[in-house]
Amino acid sequence: MAAYDPDNIFVKMLKGEIPCHKLYEDDDTLAFLDIMPRTEGHVLVITKEPAPDLYGISPEGLAKLAAVVQKLAPKIKDAVGADGVLIQQFNGAAAGQTVFHLHFHIIPRKDGVPMGPEGAKMADPDALAATAEKIRNVISA
Amino acid sequence: MAAYDPDNIFVKMLKGEIPCHKLYEDDDTLAFLDIMPRTEGHVLVITKEPAPDLYGISPEGLAKLAAVVQKLAPKIKDAVGADGVLIQQFNGAAAGQTVFHLHFHIIPRKDGVPMGPEGAKMADPDALAATAEKIRNVISA
Repeated sequence: MAAYDPDNIFVKMLKGEIPCHKLYEDDDTLAFLDIMPRTEGHVLVITKEPAPDLYGISPEGLAKLAAVVQKLAPKIKDAVGADGVLIQQFNGAAAGQTVFHLHFHIIPRKDGVPMGPEGAKMADPDALAATAEKIRNVISA
Repeated sequence: MAAYDPDNIFVKMLKGEIPCHKLYEDDDTLAFLDIMPRTEGHVLVITKEPAPDLYGISPEGLAKLAAVVQKLAPKIKDAVGADGVLIQQFNGAAAGQTVFHLHFHIIPRKDGVPMGPEGAKMADPDALAATAEKIRNVISA
């Protein structure tokens, strides 16, 4: 298990100290747009437990996180008109983890459209806001 | 949700009709080596529910599956001497899904060592057996 920084960027989002394109929140989880999306609708779902990675969360917390990923994935897919959904979760820098607060990636995939590289480019803020609005509309429908 | 074929290759493994390098089994899940590994110790964890993908499993079944992934991931990492673990789960052909029976990939990652491509090459059977043995030893320790 990695060391946990209680002031990591996701905690700041949870506290509202820095903004995010929030899509869903409950007592245990928060979902928001990745600002460096690999495809349109690339979403992160984070736990509210102070868990750096998969090894550090309680089984109950993991079950709740997985249930939210399951609930959101098809709605996000539909919202952006995708054909499939890739779920990813990184543990350790060797696996691509950059923020050491447990999170799942929900990445909508369209037939024949490649993903952009990981963490390559900040998306246009207006485009992100428009995508967030589309997803929120499907979630609340 | 994709159509579910009750005779898919993973069901044949569950029934013992075709062999696999079994690592772990309980009432709800089975874990075995991917025979086309992207890194040494690439493991698949499957549900015993007839669920083609993430959308089709009960939340209880998903919680059990996630708990097994959580339990096995660090043991597999240690068994093969990896530094991190990538968790992946594909929904739909557009996302890379080839067997329409819900499964999670556990892929150990080592610093600076790239992954092989998806489903590219069948591994040497003796090498797979040796890897399976290393992992079973850590699981049963």
